[in-house]
Amino acid sequence: MGRPLIEIDPTKPISEYYEVIQNRWHPDIPAVASVRPGEVFTVECPDWTGGQVRNDDTATDIRDMELSPNHHLTGPIEVAGAEPGDLLVVDILDIGPHPKQSWGYTGIFCRHNGGGFLTDHFPHAHKAIWEFDGVWARSRHVPGVRIPYLAHPGILGTAPSHDLLARWNERERKLIAQNPERVPPLALPPEPRNAVLGALRPGTPEYERVAREAARTIPPRENGGNRDIKNLTRGARALLPVHVKGAKLTVGDLHYSQGDGEITFCGAIEMPGYITMCVDLIKDGMNKYNLHHAIFQPSLTEPRFSSYIVFEGYSVDEEGRQYYLDAHVAYRMACLEAINYLKSFGYTAEEAYMILGTAPIEGRISSIVDIPNACCTLWLPTEIFEFDIRPRKEGPVRVVSGGRLPTARWEDR
Amino acid sequence: MGRPLIEIDPTKPISEYYEVIQNRWHPDIPAVASVRPGEVFTVECPDWTGGQVRNDDTATDIRDMELSPNHHLTGPIEVAGAEPGDLLVVDILDIGPHPKQSWGYTGIFCRHNGGGFLTDHFPHAHKAIWEFDGVWARSRHVPGVRIPYLAHPGILGTAPSHDLLARWNERERKLIAQNPERVPPLALPPEPRNAVLGALRPGTPEYERVAREAARTIPPRENGGNRDIKNLTRGARALLPVHVKGAKLTVGDLHYSQGDGEITFCGAIEMPGYITMCVDLIKDGMNKYNLHHAIFQPSLTEPRFSSYIVFEGYSVDEEGRQYYLDAHVAYRMACLEAINYLKSFGYTAEEAYMILGTAPIEGRISSIVDIPNACCTLWLPTEIFEFDIRPRKEGPVRVVSGGRLPTARWEDR
Amino acid sequence: MGRPLIEIDPTKPISEYYEVIQNRWHPDIPAVASVRPGEVFTVECPDWTGGQVRNDDTATDIRDMELSPNHHLTGPIEVAGAEPGDLLVVDILDIGPHPKQSWGYTGIFCRHNGGGFLTDHFPHAHKAIWEFDGVWARSRHVPGVRIPYLAHPGILGTAPSHDLLARWNERERKLIAQNPERVPPLALPPEPRNAVLGALRPGTPEYERVAREAARTIPPRENGGNRDIKNLTRGARALLPVHVKGAKLTVGDLHYSQGDGEITFCGAIEMPGYITMCVDLIKDGMNKYNLHHAIFQPSLTEPRFSSYIVFEGYSVDEEGRQYYLDAHVAYRMACLEAINYLKSFGYTAEEAYMILGTAPIEGRISSIVDIPNACCTLWLPTEIFEFDIRPRKEGPVRVVSGGRLPTARWEDR
Amino acid sequence: MGRPLIEIDPTKPISEYYEVIQNRWHPDIPAVASVRPGEVFTVECPDWTGGQVRNDDTATDIRDMELSPNHHLTGPIEVAGAEPGDLLVVDILDIGPHPKQSWGYTGIFCRHNGGGFLTDHFPHAHKAIWEFDGVWARSRHVPGVRIPYLAHPGILGTAPSHDLLARWNERERKLIAQNPERVPPLALPPEPRNAVLGALRPGTPEYERVAREAARTIPPRENGGNRDIKNLTRGARALLPVHVKGAKLTVGDLHYSQGDGEITFCGAIEMPGYITMCVDLIKDGMNKYNLHHAIFQPSLTEPRFSSYIVFEGYSVDEEGRQYYLDAHVAYRMACLEAINYLKSFGYTAEEAYMILGTAPIEGRISSIVDIPNACCTLWLPTEIFEFDIRPRKEGPVRVVSGGRLPTARWEDR
Repeated sequence: MGRPLIEIDPTKPISEYYEVIQNRWHPDIPAVASVRPGEVFTVECPDWTGGQVRNDDTATDIRDMELSPNHHLTGPIEVAGAEPGDLLVVDILDIGPHPKQSWGYTGIFCRHNGGGFLTDHFPHAHKAIWEFDGVWARSRHVPGVRIPYLAHPGILGTAPSHDLLARWNERERKLIAQNPERVPPLALPPEPRNAVLGALRPGTPEYERVAREAARTIPPRENGGNRDIKNLTRGARALLPVHVKGAKLTVGDLHYSQGDGEITFCGAIEMPGYITMCVDLIKDGMNKYNLHHAIFQPSLTEPRFSSYIVFEGYSVDEEGRQYYLDAHVAYRMACLEAINYLKSFGYTAEEAYMILGTAPIEGRISSIVDIPNACCTLWLPTEIFEFDIRPRKEGPVRVVSGGRLPTARWEDR
Repeated sequence: MGRPLIEIDPTKPISEYYEVIQNRWHPDIPAVASVRPGEVFTVECPDWTGGQVRNDDTATDIRDMELSPNHHLTGPIEVAGAEPGDLLVVDILDIGPHPKQSWGYTGIFCRHNGGGFLTDHFPHAHKAIWEFDGVWARSRHVPGVRIPYLAHPGILGTAPSHDLLARWNERERKLIAQNPERVPPLALPPEPRNAVLGALRPGTPEYERVAREAARTIPPRENGGNRDIKNLTRGARALLPVHVKGAKLTVGDLHYSQGDGEITFCGAIEMPGYITMCVDLIKDGMNKYNLHHAIFQPSLTEPRFSSYIVFEGYSVDEEGRQYYLDAHVAYRMACLEAINYLKSFGYTAEEAYMILGTAPIEGRISSIVDIPNACCTLWLPTEIFEFDIRPRKEGPVRVVSGGRLPTARWEDR
Repeated sequence: MGRPLIEIDPTKPISEYYEVIQNRWHPDIPAVASVRPGEVFTVECPDWTGGQVRNDDTATDIRDMELSPNHHLTGPIEVAGAEPGDLLVVDILDIGPHPKQSWGYTGIFCRHNGGGFLTDHFPHAHKAIWEFDGVWARSRHVPGVRIPYLAHPGILGTAPSHDLLARWNERERKLIAQNPERVPPLALPPEPRNAVLGALRPGTPEYERVAREAARTIPPRENGGNRDIKNLTRGARALLPVHVKGAKLTVGDLHYSQGDGEITFCGAIEMPGYITMCVDLIKDGMNKYNLHHAIFQPSLTEPRFSSYIVFEGYSVDEEGRQYYLDAHVAYRMACLEAINYLKSFGYTAEEAYMILGTAPIEGRISSIVDIPNACCTLWLPTEIFEFDIRPRKEGPVRVVSGGRLPTARWEDR
Repeated sequence: MGRPLIEIDPTKPISEYYEVIQNRWHPDIPAVASVRPGEVFTVECPDWTGGQVRNDDTATDIRDMELSPNHHLTGPIEVAGAEPGDLLVVDILDIGPHPKQSWGYTGIFCRHNGGGFLTDHFPHAHKAIWEFDGVWARSRHVPGVRIPYLAHPGILGTAPSHDLLARWNERERKLIAQNPERVPPLALPPEPRNAVLGALRPGTPEYERVAREAARTIPPRENGGNRDIKNLTRGARALLPVHVKGAKLTVGDLHYSQGDGEITFCGAIEMPGYITMCVDLIKDGMNKYNLHHAIFQPSLTEPRFSSYIVFEGYSVDEEGRQYYLDAHVAYRMACLEAINYLKSFGYTAEEAYMILGTAPIEGRISSIVDIPNACCTLWLPTEIFEFDIRPRKEGPVRVVSGGRLPTARWEDR
């Protein structure tokens, strides 16, 4: 279905595919393929780490991961006729695991190597492997739960213009300067080491210049990029700003599923896979609709739940310190409440954390004007559990422990 | 349906009902009524301002509002058998506008008197009046849109213990001390002026003591309180921490509908109304489920939409300043994107702002680990509009202006 | 909300309201009120029997009911400007139980007095009383289940023209002639006895003529009428053919909830109540849209379920006799399967039958071309039960019997 | 994903795969493969006709089709441990078009060769080809509409016992005897011609015996079979009666999508494809749950719509003849209403008919007790159309004709 535009075999070394891979944003990375509006095409992607994670029962690969080569993205793809100011319409027609790899993983990253939303509570590396059985993913490391298919690209973006890139680098540099030694860091500056830039090959002056200037792919920005929006799934329509001629569409960091926030950092179920797209253009769309960012229209075919337990957090932190309408703190507190709740059924904290990272939870900003507390809520669908987790008069039944592996599996505990 | 427990006529002065009203949180406000687990009962509530807002076409009432008497809440109601540590189960069986008032209002508060989420962009007072026609609310001040019924209590809470109250006052005092002169303020300390404390009458030593100690009702806290969660609607089940004997349940600040965030501050469609509840207890529930905050289970009968436009914001502010995973900034930027988009159809900024405050939009924390940018999304259901607002190749049609009132209606522009 | 157009007190004898009641269809029944397009108004209705059923624990009232005066409907209401060929738009803005009666009932009618879809299996009268607690109805006669609010008018129709009425009478007469002695009958001819015709008073020639000609209100027909569509609930929009000048809108037979098919005949939760509507016209709409029947658009705020058990039936009857694509037989067989399934949890057959009549089950024609079997499916939402009814390896747990009344309560068993 | 159990290449002649194909039901067709409870496996299937339909713009293949070899099904598959009386649990984990064919078709069959639900109105053959673009199917023969993925097996069944088979043959024989010359026929008796029986090869006595006894696969029966239930899609769980040792599971007749009723007979979007399943057993489940037929639990990930137009039909036929609670007639009349409505937008009757066959419409039995009329409703989701088909004051806009092919394309018109 759709023209096979770029093929990547995840069982081979990623370096064999560097010509169609980029791990930085820059307008001068050459296009590796070209499509026309209305065309349907399929692109394959490695997992975000380019194959650094193994299907086993330890977390040393997570603990020791080299982060600078990430994310390994496929592209850029030129869209004929696209010009700055246009809105690039991207219909996601299909997306799924790569035919050669039917498993994915979730990682909790160490505090000193990546961190995560709750890194103060979870400073050590952990990993869960998920097996894909069609519409469900199951993990031998997380008992009692099955996660429905909600595959999406963590990253879908266009190339920045030179001017936009310069603004990114400047504003992020200023932030880093506030606390350059922080662990984890506040942001990541351009990093020439391990830059992969497609047709630009190391050793050339053009490679060196671009690698020195190019932005990292971690944050979402005005080009879309690493938005990690779980709802960009099969059937969704993304609309992306065009900043350079040809748009230069790039895609990768595919997830089988993810909860809002992707809270364990590598919190989704990460996988290599394929994505089928159809592109179109709304000429001068940014101006017509007064937009500065990407927008999207969600799919009709997301999993829909009718039963949730909703946890609340306010902007008062673990030590009782009061913040001013801080939705970050409030969502963290809601996550901790949910983890505590799940522990009452027998889950370990790490299992609960990974459930919240991978399951299609909703993270909502419920109120943001009631000074001084923001109220954020975490919506946990009850139907993903194989037992009843709703609150009952008799209290929780500790049903989960039977599913655990018999031996300690995380060497860095 | 259900025992009529407390009746309030919104056409009469609120002062006639002070015996069943409280506008502060304190454990020593005496209960005004008592219910047993399993009992179904109905409580009436004034609007949060106790009737300060008129059904007219000016916003002087919003601009000049006396804020210290708010919120006007009904209660507290004693629940037989409730003890500290229990979870109070509150089934919301029905809720709606008061039979004597079939309209509500939304206010944008001045920067110097209340403010709001986008107060830097909307420093002046505005108001919209909404007429209730059953399942739909329509406003002569906001053309082209109808808001479906999603009534809920902005405030549903239990009394704090003395110890918890002391902690609230201490942590909020510290925050205020960081910038005591800020406009709008960071938080509000106890305010004896205009305290309404039910059976405790002004002039008595007990009133004076409680008024001096009692917490304001603006923020949500560990007792539930002003969570402004739009999904606590008919059919939802709230579970609230019990901190004092008898729980002392209090309810008010009823809304016909609200968007996630309640971004204009008085952003819901505010109304006097009634709420029918049934209460029950999970004994020692806080401990059994490891909880510190309220939780809830949403209703089967919320309006469900299948078509949305989703706007994105990242933690880079209007001036291009970069923040670290700041979901507050990111949601603000998403709100501004949505307002700009709606302006392309002919809406004024104020109309668009009030649509986002009142319509059942969803505010999501989509990613919160992609340093340095949080990504928040605002989900706008397209089916509330009487015209097609989805992005089209030909661009937006400016259809809205015909619905506007012919003359300027906001005197403080 | 909305102009109170017609008020009826269900605690008084229905005969006090005969001036605004009709129980037959005829173009010459005079309008009792008038409304304009765009107007919002509220109408009260008796239950369909005009108060013949008591809130008690016997079924003698069902067994012995006088059926000829039914249904007791409110109207007709003239719509200004409506002409034959128009589509009358009726927005159902609100609907609910009458403020003076917070209970309803479901009846299984005797085979010799009304019957029902499964009358061969349930030849005797039974009754269940349901108490309304806002969004939920519960019955002391049907344990373990709660039915969510899905109120709708069983009957919403316009007056037939003289010509249309003549065609109805002729075609139904021919059907009756096929088996005039059948019990229950194939159809009901005009019945002057107990005709209630609003302003037309018994004894006058006009009353006698109209009573002799007027059609019974049991079946749905080209005027809408007794369609018993559960989805015509708050928020739905009905579009009805106009056959006479002024449309003559009539409403009644209100239900708190009902399953598709209303299979026990009086299978909904029947109640007196109110309905708030807003009317409008699509001029010449029948012709513009090539329509001969009513259509509707459902509400955004129906209860939505994500978990169902679906039962199947084919057009082979209880004795193994094969029918040709007979969806009636197929749906009956699906109903029997569902009743048998529910019995495995301890329900009596009558309890199960009444659950299927009242709960928001969906009845679907899944296939109708696979000769010789139609396949009909019955979708039972699992979330209405207070225990888990999904199929499990260990089989069903018989949990229900504890909720039953201690003594036999149906005298005609 | 899952063990590849049976592979079939739809570009090769179906006769190459006869060893794993069956087109009749009989207990003595030998199993072609075996699976254990808990095992995940994938089976490929030809389209129901075994490749008789071409991707072109004529309908001669439909008109002249040889029907006796249909359906071409894959199996039977033995399930280890299954015994008569068990419930076979079949989780549908994935299903989709065959990798080698990204298109499907819908046929209207001639009255004299197959017929269909509305064959009196559509006596001639027509065909539409649908191209699959991931989550959407589009047809060059049906403009203005796109059909979302809702793939399912039209047929999923177990083998009948000898006794059950004998009962089928007997009851269907009696029906046929009522009108043996009818066109289309009332039912189809065993047909040895073109029987395909897997490992049983023509010419052997065993083949001859089984071919003479075996039931046709057209109707659904107590073994599941050709139920054509559109909701048996990815994520659904089917529970099938086991009648013989090893269950003998058979699957085929895959559809990309289908409307309730599959009204054009070959009304779904027919395709060759794959299905991934996991099986399990509820021992003695038929008895434990009092079941005689298959049941199922639908998927969380069906497309969900919030906007429908609902058409109504009553059991009065096109000539005005009155039937007694005949849901077949009532659904036919609802279908005709919907077709007429769609014609008002410029669709031809054939286009409209094929939309209703292929789009995920819901066919409901709304009331079945209101003598003499059943009321059936057809729910048409508005979001599948590329223009607004909701009723408007100004009437329909005839937008569709531009999308048609320029020349007559059906040679038998």
